[in-house]
Amino acid sequence: MGKCINHPDRETPYICMKHQIYLCEECLKCRDPNVYCKHRPSCPIWFMDKRQETWADEDRQAAATATHTVTFQPQGRTVDIADGTTLLEAAQAADVHLNASCNGKGSCGKCKLIVTQGKVVATQTPLLTEAEQDKGYVLACQSRVTGDVTVTIPEETIQRKLKIAGMGKTVTARLKGLVEEVQPMLETVPLSLSPPSLTDSVSDLDRLQRGLKKAGWDLSRLNVGLAVMRQLADIVRQDNWNITTSVIRRKCANEILEVKPGNGSTPNLGLAIDVGTTTIVVYLVDMADGSVLAATAGHNRQADCGDDVINRIVCAEKNGVKKLSRMALATINSLIGEALDSAAAKADTIRNVVISGNTTMAHLLLQIEPRYIRRDPYIPTASEFPILKAGEIGIKANPIAAVFIMPGPASYVGGDIVSGILYTGFHREDPVTLFIDIGTNGEIVLGNQEWLMTAACSAGPAFEGGGIRWGMRAEAGAIEKVSIDPQTFAPTLSTVDDAPPRGICGSGMIDLIAELLNAGIVDRSGSFAGDREHPRIVRTGDEAAYVLVFADQTPMGEDIVFTASDLKNLIYSKGAVYAGFTTLLGEAGMDFSLVERVIITGGFGQYLNIDKAVAIGLLPDIERGKFAYMGNSSIKGAYMALLSNDYRQEARDICNRMTYVDFSSNPHYMEEFTSACFLPHTNLNAFPSVTEAKKAS
Amino acid sequence: MGKCINHPDRETPYICMKHQIYLCEECLKCRDPNVYCKHRPSCPIWFMDKRQETWADEDRQAAATATHTVTFQPQGRTVDIADGTTLLEAAQAADVHLNASCNGKGSCGKCKLIVTQGKVVATQTPLLTEAEQDKGYVLACQSRVTGDVTVTIPEETIQRKLKIAGMGKTVTARLKGLVEEVQPMLETVPLSLSPPSLTDSVSDLDRLQRGLKKAGWDLSRLNVGLAVMRQLADIVRQDNWNITTSVIRRKCANEILEVKPGNGSTPNLGLAIDVGTTTIVVYLVDMADGSVLAATAGHNRQADCGDDVINRIVCAEKNGVKKLSRMALATINSLIGEALDSAAAKADTIRNVVISGNTTMAHLLLQIEPRYIRRDPYIPTASEFPILKAGEIGIKANPIAAVFIMPGPASYVGGDIVSGILYTGFHREDPVTLFIDIGTNGEIVLGNQEWLMTAACSAGPAFEGGGIRWGMRAEAGAIEKVSIDPQTFAPTLSTVDDAPPRGICGSGMIDLIAELLNAGIVDRSGSFAGDREHPRIVRTGDEAAYVLVFADQTPMGEDIVFTASDLKNLIYSKGAVYAGFTTLLGEAGMDFSLVERVIITGGFGQYLNIDKAVAIGLLPDIERGKFAYMGNSSIKGAYMALLSNDYRQEARDICNRMTYVDFSSNPHYMEEFTSACFLPHTNLNAFPSVTEAKKAS
Repeated sequence: MGKCINHPDRETPYICMKHQIYLCEECLKCRDPNVYCKHRPSCPIWFMDKRQETWADEDRQAAATATHTVTFQPQGRTVDIADGTTLLEAAQAADVHLNASCNGKGSCGKCKLIVTQGKVVATQTPLLTEAEQDKGYVLACQSRVTGDVTVTIPEETIQRKLKIAGMGKTVTARLKGLVEEVQPMLETVPLSLSPPSLTDSVSDLDRLQRGLKKAGWDLSRLNVGLAVMRQLADIVRQDNWNITTSVIRRKCANEILEVKPGNGSTPNLGLAIDVGTTTIVVYLVDMADGSVLAATAGHNRQADCGDDVINRIVCAEKNGVKKLSRMALATINSLIGEALDSAAAKADTIRNVVISGNTTMAHLLLQIEPRYIRRDPYIPTASEFPILKAGEIGIKANPIAAVFIMPGPASYVGGDIVSGILYTGFHREDPVTLFIDIGTNGEIVLGNQEWLMTAACSAGPAFEGGGIRWGMRAEAGAIEKVSIDPQTFAPTLSTVDDAPPRGICGSGMIDLIAELLNAGIVDRSGSFAGDREHPRIVRTGDEAAYVLVFADQTPMGEDIVFTASDLKNLIYSKGAVYAGFTTLLGEAGMDFSLVERVIITGGFGQYLNIDKAVAIGLLPDIERGKFAYMGNSSIKGAYMALLSNDYRQEARDICNRMTYVDFSSNPHYMEEFTSACFLPHTNLNAFPSVTEAKKAS
Repeated sequence: MGKCINHPDRETPYICMKHQIYLCEECLKCRDPNVYCKHRPSCPIWFMDKRQETWADEDRQAAATATHTVTFQPQGRTVDIADGTTLLEAAQAADVHLNASCNGKGSCGKCKLIVTQGKVVATQTPLLTEAEQDKGYVLACQSRVTGDVTVTIPEETIQRKLKIAGMGKTVTARLKGLVEEVQPMLETVPLSLSPPSLTDSVSDLDRLQRGLKKAGWDLSRLNVGLAVMRQLADIVRQDNWNITTSVIRRKCANEILEVKPGNGSTPNLGLAIDVGTTTIVVYLVDMADGSVLAATAGHNRQADCGDDVINRIVCAEKNGVKKLSRMALATINSLIGEALDSAAAKADTIRNVVISGNTTMAHLLLQIEPRYIRRDPYIPTASEFPILKAGEIGIKANPIAAVFIMPGPASYVGGDIVSGILYTGFHREDPVTLFIDIGTNGEIVLGNQEWLMTAACSAGPAFEGGGIRWGMRAEAGAIEKVSIDPQTFAPTLSTVDDAPPRGICGSGMIDLIAELLNAGIVDRSGSFAGDREHPRIVRTGDEAAYVLVFADQTPMGEDIVFTASDLKNLIYSKGAVYAGFTTLLGEAGMDFSLVERVIITGGFGQYLNIDKAVAIGLLPDIERGKFAYMGNSSIKGAYMALLSNDYRQEARDICNRMTYVDFSSNPHYMEEFTSACFLPHTNLNAFPSVTEAKKAS
């Protein structure tokens, strides 16, 4: 318990996990950024943690005597758990995956379950409609088990499998064209040594090194470990001095990691892996020529612990970083398995790996303590990593496979951004470029071949569906495009895979806000025009909402609505990103007129309507030809680094060149953010084309 | 079974383990080198293995049904073993140490036991006198257990503790004077880092590296492993950014091995270890100033597997190299423990280790396959080793302690010789020097600052007591000096520690032969003058012998005799060494007149009477002032390398500079050996001072 920062006379249990600031319930509900939490816009923790972490533990200790059985349908899986355990914890214990974006804080409303037998003690939540409550819906994280219970996981809570990215011949050819010469980290060197004699009696190791010297290796930089030496004598003699050595190239000293009998050719594969907070992508690559043999993608299983990096770190602090590492590895290794299956290849032929991910993902995967990433002054353990072995991380590959981790310059600008820059290549060119990756965080890079500045802004998970009543990722059934007839208010929608609508994803939200604004359903301040009487404009709970799809047209049998709170959240998100642009430009003494190119990257970007993103003030109102969309640049940069030592060095150089600007200590950022929390902006002069369009209509 | 190489019509089970040559029983007994085994003088396996290794295993399999209990006195230790097991194997199983030079072949006669209760089935052996047999003596290796039995280990079979080498102030001061500046491999670097802030938010690792850069380290060559990175965040914050890092200096890339909280000063110790085939010596050194805090020495427990390196390798092939490694480690670690106790220090303060040993010792200790060392063309796995960690070898020290293994150029010229050269320093000087280390093998180095040639000759274990009826090491009770009255044949003796005589050691044997020759008891061909009637000249078995000490003056109550076979063995040994000198000089196109200095080193040398060694033809007859005795040069070289990186590099350079001459394929060596198997030599012109003395007397 502590005193509310805005009302010092009020005791409250609600604390911001990052700033250690208490807020009372009234302030917590208040959405005015100037009241809510003055640190909020610049705080990487978008949502406040609603209770001190210790509380839940105390509750649990008091009650944990009896045990009950929970049965999950349709899987039919059961688990015995202690009295008072939440259904979410029960699901984790039963290895049943629920969508739980906020990691059990009750704020995302994603972990819906239907209680079909028995009862649970559920906390009241505004995130369930009355209709849902009548049907027996509960939030798994807000429901404690007090007796045997059977629950069914509804359609909308099941995680859908991501499509395997198609890698057509054109894409493969374009990727291969990026690399001139393949230079793996772990190189396989077949050798045929001359057998020893009384007149040529140098040691086995000297003979091996002589062979490597002939093959062009620099011996003064060659190490060898005890494990190799212990078996060397037998191995070199097994196939009459024909051997294959595996040598790893390191910054300074190379190392002989393995010697095997025989010198025939063996397949040599590599992996490029993009470990996103939400999605993980794997490319299986033939190191002989750079062909992509398979590409797979899936949800990061860490999502069980929450949507954003902060929740992941909190979870690592509670449950140990090993658990988070294992969760990510479960996804990575199952994707590698799929890729190997489709290429009919074996794991031990994988001898080179490049991993690109944000700083938190890298720390968690490598089991490096992450807690200081989320604590002022936000310091990661490492920005650059040594070349590791797959065996010491747990990657499904040959245990001696060399693993390069993309370096990242700061706690909130990581290796995925460096990898993206590497692929887009603007750091080698003259035009001043604004590079933006909008995901859970929004990372911005500004610069060219001369200089690179970078910053992170707390976009929050809204564009990925977090904190939005019907928000979801761009999966089957997600509404991705919206237009609204300004006369009838009737929407025209398209969904991913043309599936029946189940929710709305980021690009759909941008379209929707632009269209709501255009139709005059919402005003520039982000308020619903309350005086309209229309079947599509309803009240849900105590706030206004727009009905996108009526209940009879959804598989769930419920209205898909977009509420005033959803709109506020998205305005804060887009405001945080736009304020990031202007603040970073300000730091560089520039404005948008000097930006010659805007590169948009990240999973979100591919459905983005640039005009509408400008209309709501997410992107700047500059010449549309300057915008370029590059898709998932992180995985492509990882592919380049996998094949080329020059690119690996270039990644290190990019990381070292980047100047990080911290917004949480930047007074301008707060001002820019406040100004940006309008549609499109308080300063309309910055959006001439929007104003023109308005006038024209 | 196979055909005798000299008598092709005879089937025989006796095989030379090295040359895979069979010899019949007659040839085996014959001591004429031209008949015996023509490979013998150049064969590193001095003694023939008497049975094919598989035999014993077959015997055992057939019988292993019943089990019996063996009790060893005076320890009172018991062990249950299978029917047919030998007493030696039972002793090994019970962890009771017997002196078993030949590793159970029945040829050394050292493993005497007295059966006090029960019976054993013992093979007939000429190595026990009738008196001994009457008292119930058996050889442990030749006695199989067929029922419960109690045995007592007699006085002469118990291994005595070696004296702890005295390290007076003068010796310490002289050693310290050898090293100008202490440069450890694993360096302890205390740092006080500036805490991070929002404006100085580099990663923990970058901050650490910045600190190391300030302390003068080259960052481009600095690696860090995952283990350090995983804990770094917590450790740096534990004592407010005061830390102590351990950085290992490697040839090319240095590595941060450990980071600990706090930056106070901690003791920093080092070990120099000489792993001899027979004796292991340990120096515990204060790395701050090079003071030797303690010096301990003990018998290498591998001696349970035989006296020489060949027997050790055979044992490793049978029982696995790990067993031999553990045996050496048992001795090394107990010596380290003693040294730590006497210095009141803890094992984890030991952070640097240098080990010097012959090539076989190094391979066995590191568990590197040794079998090809003893097989034509005699190839070791490695001549140079990477810097290892104490933890990966099993040395009692901080697990991250850096371990440097002295490099050795060939299978039979190892790191102990390189270490010896490093200490004596003749490789840096102009005078042509002959360096000789007579131990179980005889290693010879010839050269100066311009060139270095080296070879090994099979001196055999005779000078260390092996194959000599009453031979023993220079332990308490060993006769180390002998003179014989040419008139009365009465000997004047002195023993180590002035203890009652228990046997004779190397220097005593040299004295004895010189005196026997001088008194005319033996002739130049090495035969006893058979016609002498004298109480001191007796027949034992079917051969002549000289009685050194009568039974009533020994603790064992038996005559200490020196037999004709003992004499032959020693003549072969000294002939092998002398032939080594002349052959190596011949390879260099030189003779003794060009040798400006002879350095004698090795444990044996310190009791050596140069004149008498010349008189029997072990050492060349050159100006006595040219001889210098350097004691155990191997441990002193290890000490130097422990303290100085320059010396470690110098050791590598010495190893690379040495040209190895293989005598087993050298036709001159056989000729030289045959000529040297006389007292002092067939060519008396080479020994003018001996001839002069003879004329004068």
